[in-house]
Amino acid sequence: MSDQITIAIDAMGGDHAPSVPVEGAVLAARNTQTKILLVGDQGPVETELEKHDTEGLPISVIGSEGKIEDSEAPALALRQKPRSSVLVATGLVKAGIADAIISMGSTGGTMAAAVVLLGTIKGIERPAIGGPIVGSAPNQTIVDLGSNIDCKPSQLLGFGILGSVFSKVLLKINDPKIGVLSVGSEQNKGNSLTKEASTLFSKSGLNFIGNVEGNDLAKGTADVVVCDGFVGNVLLKLVEGIGTELGLQLQSALLNKMPLEDIRGIVQELHSKNNVVDSRGGGPVFGVDGVSIVGHGSASPGTFERAVRLAKMCVETKLIEEMNEQVPRIMELIAD
Amino acid sequence: MSDQITIAIDAMGGDHAPSVPVEGAVLAARNTQTKILLVGDQGPVETELEKHDTEGLPISVIGSEGKIEDSEAPALALRQKPRSSVLVATGLVKAGIADAIISMGSTGGTMAAAVVLLGTIKGIERPAIGGPIVGSAPNQTIVDLGSNIDCKPSQLLGFGILGSVFSKVLLKINDPKIGVLSVGSEQNKGNSLTKEASTLFSKSGLNFIGNVEGNDLAKGTADVVVCDGFVGNVLLKLVEGIGTELGLQLQSALLNKMPLEDIRGIVQELHSKNNVVDSRGGGPVFGVDGVSIVGHGSASPGTFERAVRLAKMCVETKLIEEMNEQVPRIMELIAD
Repeated sequence: MSDQITIAIDAMGGDHAPSVPVEGAVLAARNTQTKILLVGDQGPVETELEKHDTEGLPISVIGSEGKIEDSEAPALALRQKPRSSVLVATGLVKAGIADAIISMGSTGGTMAAAVVLLGTIKGIERPAIGGPIVGSAPNQTIVDLGSNIDCKPSQLLGFGILGSVFSKVLLKINDPKIGVLSVGSEQNKGNSLTKEASTLFSKSGLNFIGNVEGNDLAKGTADVVVCDGFVGNVLLKLVEGIGTELGLQLQSALLNKMPLEDIRGIVQELHSKNNVVDSRGGGPVFGVDGVSIVGHGSASPGTFERAVRLAKMCVETKLIEEMNEQVPRIMELIAD
Repeated sequence: MSDQITIAIDAMGGDHAPSVPVEGAVLAARNTQTKILLVGDQGPVETELEKHDTEGLPISVIGSEGKIEDSEAPALALRQKPRSSVLVATGLVKAGIADAIISMGSTGGTMAAAVVLLGTIKGIERPAIGGPIVGSAPNQTIVDLGSNIDCKPSQLLGFGILGSVFSKVLLKINDPKIGVLSVGSEQNKGNSLTKEASTLFSKSGLNFIGNVEGNDLAKGTADVVVCDGFVGNVLLKLVEGIGTELGLQLQSALLNKMPLEDIRGIVQELHSKNNVVDSRGGGPVFGVDGVSIVGHGSASPGTFERAVRLAKMCVETKLIEEMNEQVPRIMELIAD
């Protein structure tokens, strides 16, 4: 592998594949000083690529067969489609040919491919998805956002360690504050899961600030917030839904009060400020032993470019190495 | 008891008691054709009442001693303060002297007083709090919003029946659609609680539409949404928090684009539209055998007037009688 960082992009993943992933790959190859491997059905991907001026750009196409659909059960699909784009792309990381993989396709499929091919970090049983969801707290990492529905307290501890490393290494937050999402700030408030997780965190040596509540998510009280994937997923989708509805309300409230163009500008400004998932390009799968970035199927070419920048940062900052060091260390500390 | 509906108001409950509850009681007595019993420390309440022109208004003061604070454990506080305002006020309903009780004080204290003095509806073990939380779905009743942290599936069924009766009787929604809040629309998505609750709902004869997701809360897909009180409370506080932050963002986005007065008007308009808890005045304690209305401590005098109108409607529409009929009937159906 050359000094240049190499990123494998799942060209079949996302709502408008392969055209959007291919356009995103071209943008990224042009602007991010990385080498891009586009993994997908060879014919269609090359046809898309020919629509762009790629002269001198470090892009190659790697052929694969088919894709994992959102509607498929990930584990079964992996077995049935061993040559599917996300498996081939993740395999390139496993083989040391690529440094990271990006997919805007099935989140479950991308995570399952990462678990099977890259393995999990020691001390982590199953990976999680994390990131910011509220525009007013764009550097707050919330884990898990939907992968682990019924959780054990030790899983919440794992989310907190992974989130804390991400927050420190990637977001440059010194000694990140970790909170457990609950229903009251007092230690005795919460369900059995959050109370037991709090006990673990208080022994972890991490900068644990106790319980945080729903309103703290908007204020960004903690840098890292842990919750089970059921709660996280409901929150993620609620915030998206509220954003859409408030955008419509705002438009109608401003109507006839200023020029249409200004209204559009303001609504757009607030939308971008609050669509924090898109502004980062996606998020890493937390807990797997390699850089695997997942994003929303509605990703634009610009989203892919941002995802490549994120992947590159994960590699350069040695995010995975740091996670591999911190998780087992703290898990052992707790076990004592 | 005369034909006129009589409402007991906890004059000691709320952030600015007794002044705000007293002013609210005066408003309500003037505008809602109800008789008001103001329950609180006699001296301070009468002093407040003298500041208003109450000539000919149907308001009486009933003396009580002290109040239950938010910081107190409700069950213990009830034993320690048997003459506290919320207990005396709820006792008036128990004795048939008042038709309903309203308190903006400790929610836990109000609920505990209702359980102890009025009892629960047959089939309901513990009461719940429900109501709309998202401005774009102002007639969507979400239960539970924070009273029952660790729930059994049968409790979620109870929330659904109570919410459905409220929705039909009070909000005049014919055959209300009931959804279980979960992480995917398919029946197999969710945690063990929601999956088992779904099985119960599908046997209930209610208009059960299956799972709803976070974004459905903003769209108002279901008329009644059930969730455990942990999830409901996190959602409630998140929506409040986001509203505050977006209000600030909007103000700064509009700055220098229109006159300050117009900005204030728009922010105020959107705030009122989305502060759905205040616009209804509060919500009934779901599951107790009598009308007990709780609201936010920040209630204004106008909030009290709206709460009195709500209480009056609950009495007039025979909400509790209908709950007493439906809950045991459906619970028996499920048990078969």
